[in-house]
Amino acid sequence: MTTELAFIEALRALATHPEARGLDDDVAVLDFGGEALVLTHDAMVEGVHFLPGQDPADVAWKLVATNLSDLAAKGAEPLGVLLGYQFGADDLRFLAGLKAACEHYGAPLLGGDTVSAAGAQTLGLTALGRATHRPVPARSGVRPGDSLWITGPVGAAMLGLEALKSGHGDSEAYRRPLALLSSGRILAPHVSAMMDVSDGLLLDASRMALASGVTLAIDRAAVPLAGPEDRRDEALRWGDDYQLLFTLPPGCEPPLAAFRIGAALPPGEAPLLLDGRAPDPAEKLGYEHR
Amino acid sequence: MTTELAFIEALRALATHPEARGLDDDVAVLDFGGEALVLTHDAMVEGVHFLPGQDPADVAWKLVATNLSDLAAKGAEPLGVLLGYQFGADDLRFLAGLKAACEHYGAPLLGGDTVSAAGAQTLGLTALGRATHRPVPARSGVRPGDSLWITGPVGAAMLGLEALKSGHGDSEAYRRPLALLSSGRILAPHVSAMMDVSDGLLLDASRMALASGVTLAIDRAAVPLAGPEDRRDEALRWGDDYQLLFTLPPGCEPPLAAFRIGAALPPGEAPLLLDGRAPDPAEKLGYEHR
Repeated sequence: MTTELAFIEALRALATHPEARGLDDDVAVLDFGGEALVLTHDAMVEGVHFLPGQDPADVAWKLVATNLSDLAAKGAEPLGVLLGYQFGADDLRFLAGLKAACEHYGAPLLGGDTVSAAGAQTLGLTALGRATHRPVPARSGVRPGDSLWITGPVGAAMLGLEALKSGHGDSEAYRRPLALLSSGRILAPHVSAMMDVSDGLLLDASRMALASGVTLAIDRAAVPLAGPEDRRDEALRWGDDYQLLFTLPPGCEPPLAAFRIGAALPPGEAPLLLDGRAPDPAEKLGYEHR
Repeated sequence: MTTELAFIEALRALATHPEARGLDDDVAVLDFGGEALVLTHDAMVEGVHFLPGQDPADVAWKLVATNLSDLAAKGAEPLGVLLGYQFGADDLRFLAGLKAACEHYGAPLLGGDTVSAAGAQTLGLTALGRATHRPVPARSGVRPGDSLWITGPVGAAMLGLEALKSGHGDSEAYRRPLALLSSGRILAPHVSAMMDVSDGLLLDASRMALASGVTLAIDRAAVPLAGPEDRRDEALRWGDDYQLLFTLPPGCEPPLAAFRIGAALPPGEAPLLLDGRAPDPAEKLGYEHR
């Protein structure tokens, strides 16, 4: 919606701090006490980011994991989280999932607030981390000639959501996504740019290309897939997998197992090429935030 | 509601970090890079913390000011804020108020997230600050013999809300509360304990007493009042004024203009005495969060 996009643009303009990377899916990096403090805040809404009736423990896990995934993309180690919690159907189940996720990731709950409100349950989480490598990787660092990589397959969350809705099959990838904190820390000293894939590979890759002022050319067949081949086009546009997307300077090999899916070119007419062609502008590249 | 209180208690138990002060109205202090990082997250809900139909610019201002008030109570200077924003009736008006508050307090917008959801508008803000004095003041530092002080009158927000609802009189104290950041920084090196009064003087003083393991004896007539004398009992229980409540060791005078309203005693049968008597347990001391 135009008004909302205009609002987000205006918010970004308001975020005047030189280290502020803007709003929505983005991460701020602040110099503090000689270290780099990494900050992110993501919200989740019932009916938008999770299903009404979904196990609150899974919702809590996902809230933590998606925020920590933003830290992973910065090569940061978590310091902790602050929770904005609207009371819901089963608060103690939520708490169980929150505890599990905080313990799993070593990200203590530092504080927060609770509210009661009518309507869809809205949850917010702020995650803080300490950058383990400087300069801190950004999505804007791609240079023409860099190679483009992804840490693992896409499509698992798409299939997981279908399994959850149908009651058949394995829904864990959708319910309990993983934040790739270790991979992010290992990659940080090597990458020219990095981000997590939260809204769909094609959409997030186009954001990386636009932020870097390059064109990213993706080899469609090289993208690893968690599902059947006939779901490839959907999987490339589906979010929620939280793989890390990164680029390496020419001649560099990744320090961990990863999949080479393309290369960076000088800026062309489109930020993204899929098998050499710009995607149809009428077709969505991924999940657009509302 | 018992379940919600149980949930908050459980959340507090989960907040195991030694520097975590817990959930709800509370502030975390983290050692980071040799400095003390101060963190708080407060949420506001339409119909609970602000009126449906209230000017969104005022709502934004209040969201920023109430979070920065938590930093003020720690003697911290703001580093910035992260916003969790649910789209509402007039997003550009909200933005105008956000910009005004961020500029007024020198607290840049660092990031955040936007969501659309049905139902009451829910807003969250995380504020970060740098402590200007260590040890960082806490509500738990009161010792028997300390004197109890407040920076200014209570009741202004109560009268402001009435003015806003009736359409007559000055509503600014309710619409645009002030975060006393300068006062907090001046006080921090002198106080034995400090907090902001967000939920009502009597309730917040009883929290300070419980956290410190003392009894706080308040001289009812000594509390400065923004309204008429016949509103005194209400004003002592009304929140939203964001004055700073603090204690000083015996023999110390405050470094700024303030009002002496009582003293700390060894722990007695009640955490709070008003003119020497424990308040009626059936009567609310202030605004209890839901």
